[in-house]
Amino acid sequence: MLKVNGLITLTTDFDTKDGYVGAMKGVIANIDPDLRILDITHAIPPQDIRAGALCLANATPFYPRGTVHIAVIDPGVGSKRAALVAETQHYFYVLPDNGLLTHLAEIEPILQVRRIDNTSWCCESISNSFHGRDIFAPVGAHLAAGAVFDDVGPVMDSWITLPLPQVVTQDQTCIGEVLDVDIYGNLITNISRKHFQDKKVATVIIAEMKLHGLKRSFAAVPPGELLAMIGSRDCIEIAVNGGNAARLLNVGRGDAVRVLLNPS
Amino acid sequence: MLKVNGLITLTTDFDTKDGYVGAMKGVIANIDPDLRILDITHAIPPQDIRAGALCLANATPFYPRGTVHIAVIDPGVGSKRAALVAETQHYFYVLPDNGLLTHLAEIEPILQVRRIDNTSWCCESISNSFHGRDIFAPVGAHLAAGAVFDDVGPVMDSWITLPLPQVVTQDQTCIGEVLDVDIYGNLITNISRKHFQDKKVATVIIAEMKLHGLKRSFAAVPPGELLAMIGSRDCIEIAVNGGNAARLLNVGRGDAVRVLLNPS
Amino acid sequence: MLKVNGLITLTTDFDTKDGYVGAMKGVIANIDPDLRILDITHAIPPQDIRAGALCLANATPFYPRGTVHIAVIDPGVGSKRAALVAETQHYFYVLPDNGLLTHLAEIEPILQVRRIDNTSWCCESISNSFHGRDIFAPVGAHLAAGAVFDDVGPVMDSWITLPLPQVVTQDQTCIGEVLDVDIYGNLITNISRKHFQDKKVATVIIAEMKLHGLKRSFAAVPPGELLAMIGSRDCIEIAVNGGNAARLLNVGRGDAVRVLLNPS
Repeated sequence: MLKVNGLITLTTDFDTKDGYVGAMKGVIANIDPDLRILDITHAIPPQDIRAGALCLANATPFYPRGTVHIAVIDPGVGSKRAALVAETQHYFYVLPDNGLLTHLAEIEPILQVRRIDNTSWCCESISNSFHGRDIFAPVGAHLAAGAVFDDVGPVMDSWITLPLPQVVTQDQTCIGEVLDVDIYGNLITNISRKHFQDKKVATVIIAEMKLHGLKRSFAAVPPGELLAMIGSRDCIEIAVNGGNAARLLNVGRGDAVRVLLNPS
Repeated sequence: MLKVNGLITLTTDFDTKDGYVGAMKGVIANIDPDLRILDITHAIPPQDIRAGALCLANATPFYPRGTVHIAVIDPGVGSKRAALVAETQHYFYVLPDNGLLTHLAEIEPILQVRRIDNTSWCCESISNSFHGRDIFAPVGAHLAAGAVFDDVGPVMDSWITLPLPQVVTQDQTCIGEVLDVDIYGNLITNISRKHFQDKKVATVIIAEMKLHGLKRSFAAVPPGELLAMIGSRDCIEIAVNGGNAARLLNVGRGDAVRVLLNPS
Repeated sequence: MLKVNGLITLTTDFDTKDGYVGAMKGVIANIDPDLRILDITHAIPPQDIRAGALCLANATPFYPRGTVHIAVIDPGVGSKRAALVAETQHYFYVLPDNGLLTHLAEIEPILQVRRIDNTSWCCESISNSFHGRDIFAPVGAHLAAGAVFDDVGPVMDSWITLPLPQVVTQDQTCIGEVLDVDIYGNLITNISRKHFQDKKVATVIIAEMKLHGLKRSFAAVPPGELLAMIGSRDCIEIAVNGGNAARLLNVGRGDAVRVLLNPS
């Protein structure tokens, strides 16, 4: 049984300027002023569920057991998409059913998912365009304050996951793609150690550029030069020392990456 | 008598990069490290008092009773504009006297306003360009820590409010305007249910586009299409399902909106 | 002996959208969930050490004694640059050795610096591209939770400082430069009262514009006009009342500023 710890994190695409995030924090504090709210981000690109799913996977697994993670990137607000709470071994996730759990599920196996239908935990009047304030914030706050998970609503048997771009390994080649572009323009691919195991990476090919082997760090090449390395997400990243690889190569999410291996 | 709860919110146009917001938080923590600081936003467009006033109205009314709201959008810093604390039934607002209370006052009637002249609550040396750090943060912190409201300074009989764009209703037509454009490009108008009461909205006209009736949610129209609905602020909003109405229509704050009603 | 107070501040160039900052907060909360985390900023321009150094100097000296300030602007991550903790009279600073202490050291003399080599305080597996999460956050959290400073690692005799642009005073002229451009486009120079002491500023010259004397505040000139004043950092700033001086003059960091003095 997961015991909450009074911490809530927030991940949204709301920006802060309109006061939408401020309203969510108010709703939480109003339910229990002792809850502690930590912002993960409010800068997910508008309605970009994939970016939200990646951010959740990058950030949330580092929190102490019992944290309640609220995430609202919600282009389907007001439609029939479900609102749900997912329980993992360590956390509760409170979010719309639209794929936000996709990347996380590789790290935090999902134990049980419940559809939110307990309106007594929600704001009195539920708008059709702002469930962050009216549903997700108050439900997260009630859970973090110790309410019983079973009271969220009925168990869901399935939930939405986004297609996960696959890595194809043929002979001495892994073919993957750019999964994410971070603020520095680093290109995070979906190719991780498990795809080449004990083989040695000979060449990484992206946008017709051939990068020789994996480097230990950005500083292993002169400033302004491209490199490939195992990044902080344990995947191959393509970067420029002191620069912006996405801009230099004009490459973005979904673009192809090939890795040529030497036999071990 | 309003009893404070130890919570402070911050709303500014300071961005965070220069450390101005960081300095304000330091001043607050230095006065009482047990105060809890919640960021509403630091991304109000520079010197945009109207945007600050709308943000305060959107976010602050959701906080628990006794919260101290500090807001600093302050193009007149260093001039003769007053610094004030407003007491409402639920909150203290600490801010420059320049119209920031305008939209809030419709929701939280203002009970008493005092001009800040108790310099013993302020920083020792008061600059002429950063009252956020030198006046508003420390005064808010002293109040939130339990200091007596009467000691802020003398009661003010009047304070500045921005002109409120009016809705004109003639026969079967309401004429209003776009009050705000949010981060998604949704156009929030100043036309609310009270303007058409039990009549049915037949058509919403903006930038020569005619939108048929009010929809229940974004998802009621196909992706990329325009719609009008009652938004989370209880006013008519014009939006694009999955898109940006402001950009599509090239419409912004102050542009006219007409609503044609059917007799009830 | 510096006694910590349980407060941690964060200053980075990570933006928030990728979840890097969110991961750092999780690591801190996981070490001690009672620590209180305050964001100074995550909007330092990518890899701009100078901007980070200025932000630290602007914000951190206002915090209560015993605060732990973590700062990660770290283009040399993964290279041989040291990771360090600096102790001042009031604070601990946890950051890479790349010049981030430069501007702060004028305000908070540095008492002792230790190189971080206690890996038992770090994350189990240390990446080569994200020491914010794997080194700086956990080391800062251990310190803020009461661990002994001496256990950080060996004392360092020297650390990196950026060149400090000098002010040259000849007869009745001070020649300095623009040190920083803030979010409003105000130009903060490196010329402070100590450079002209009791002499009167007759003229401030920038980009061939001559500004007459120092004004008391932005409002001392009509809207849209340039002025020079002593700003909130106790240096001469050049601003436009209600406008953006950097944009108007097309001036930025490093551009020359001359101040002509009258004899006292």
